[in-house]
Amino acid sequence: MIRINENFTKLQASYLFADIARRVSAFQEANPQTRVIRLGIGDVTEPLPPACVEAFHKGVYELASRETFRGYGPEQGYAFLREAIAQNDFQARGCEIAADEIFVSDGAKCDTGNIQEIFATDIRVAVPDPVYPVYVDTNVMAGRTGPAENGRYAGLVYLECRPDNNYTPALPSEPVDLIYLCFPNNPTGATASREQLKAWVDYARENRAIILFDAAYEAFIRDPEIPHSIYEIDGAREVAIEFRSFSKVAGFTGTRCAYTVVPKSLKAWDTAGG
Amino acid sequence: MIRINENFTKLQASYLFADIARRVSAFQEANPQTRVIRLGIGDVTEPLPPACVEAFHKGVYELASRETFRGYGPEQGYAFLREAIAQNDFQARGCEIAADEIFVSDGAKCDTGNIQEIFATDIRVAVPDPVYPVYVDTNVMAGRTGPAENGRYAGLVYLECRPDNNYTPALPSEPVDLIYLCFPNNPTGATASREQLKAWVDYARENRAIILFDAAYEAFIRDPEIPHSIYEIDGAREVAIEFRSFSKVAGFTGTRCAYTVVPKSLKAWDTAGG
Repeated sequence: MIRINENFTKLQASYLFADIARRVSAFQEANPQTRVIRLGIGDVTEPLPPACVEAFHKGVYELASRETFRGYGPEQGYAFLREAIAQNDFQARGCEIAADEIFVSDGAKCDTGNIQEIFATDIRVAVPDPVYPVYVDTNVMAGRTGPAENGRYAGLVYLECRPDNNYTPALPSEPVDLIYLCFPNNPTGATASREQLKAWVDYARENRAIILFDAAYEAFIRDPEIPHSIYEIDGAREVAIEFRSFSKVAGFTGTRCAYTVVPKSLKAWDTAGG
Repeated sequence: MIRINENFTKLQASYLFADIARRVSAFQEANPQTRVIRLGIGDVTEPLPPACVEAFHKGVYELASRETFRGYGPEQGYAFLREAIAQNDFQARGCEIAADEIFVSDGAKCDTGNIQEIFATDIRVAVPDPVYPVYVDTNVMAGRTGPAENGRYAGLVYLECRPDNNYTPALPSEPVDLIYLCFPNNPTGATASREQLKAWVDYARENRAIILFDAAYEAFIRDPEIPHSIYEIDGAREVAIEFRSFSKVAGFTGTRCAYTVVPKSLKAWDTAGG
């Protein structure tokens, strides 16, 4: 008899968004003259800039004749793109990241959702609260949590983000193995200073943990003191995977292009501890 | 301490393709005058036809101005596409499939790889042999098998495809819950008759199993007696998920567009048997 993955029945996200929709709808009915800015599920509205439009058309022309047709691209992304990323997004900022540590993909949602599959099921996972639901939901579906109660899943370590800590969480008080961080943050907009990121990298090194660092909103940083990449912190190459997106402010809004950085010196253990 | 998903260490595919490369290389060295047709990992070589090229350019123009910019599409695919698929690929062939049972995606590889996550880990899985490696590897990574020995994973039920059965496997002699079928077949090219497919659908209904039917190569069928869809078989709506691809012969070679059909009457069980 075929049976379902019962972890899926624990998912609460649909209730959350249904609840938001219900409350927004009730508010609008009671306040028909008030304009509401929706901060739930977002969408993009601006067209692509001319440079991107031109590049897309050029790509289509390449597919249109046998001489320039490329076939399936390499699964890690084209070398010219990986090299440009390594050089401009990392080496130019003093980060020691090579082209063969860049993995181009169809979006940071897919990457941050799928990455947890390479780790054991019984690890301890820390997530900020509030947080991008994809981090949580994919761990729920993978069976790393118990059921939800009062909006939180049993078994996850929640890192409080509140006004009193400027929405930047403190280190966990109990041991964790996998830590999700997102700066600039979705949904709060908070950033992390160099000192705060260093504390996380040091924590991960001491506790043999791995940080999943979502930098999808990196292009929004204006303060020159704020790191754009976790690899600006010494030692991060051993303990951090970084996610970037071209779909936010890089001109590709609404399309799907992103990449993940997995340094060759990153380390996870097998059961023998090796 | 962060630990890896040790199921990944069971994977043998890289050895297979490394072995193919080694043998091909040795043969070519010994037979430098012989042209070799590679039947390992394939690629596409022909450009897109004008109708597809034109549609791609039109799509880029839409993204280039605010009036026509679409933003993120609906996660199940655009309604106009789902309706065209339901009508032309299914209803026109007498299959009872509605537009809201069509889920458009970025490729049949992703869909056939990801679909197993919705089922329990401890189900019994049947795969033809030989088979598209993605079906097997994703079940290995999900922990549904033991280690590999002599090219086969412990815990999987292998369905023999040999010259004496015309590469179309017989029903399993032991009970299974999830059955992968691919017709026309990758890699053998074999097809399944209406009677053969009916036997599988009847088996699945009797055993409360689900069939994952990969019809990515459906456009190659020339014999009018061969079904193009498993939904041409009575009762398949309750026991089959079908995968289709636009990346094979539909003009989109080398790009990524596909869809999965999940009928609303499909049934899997929870532990309570409900």
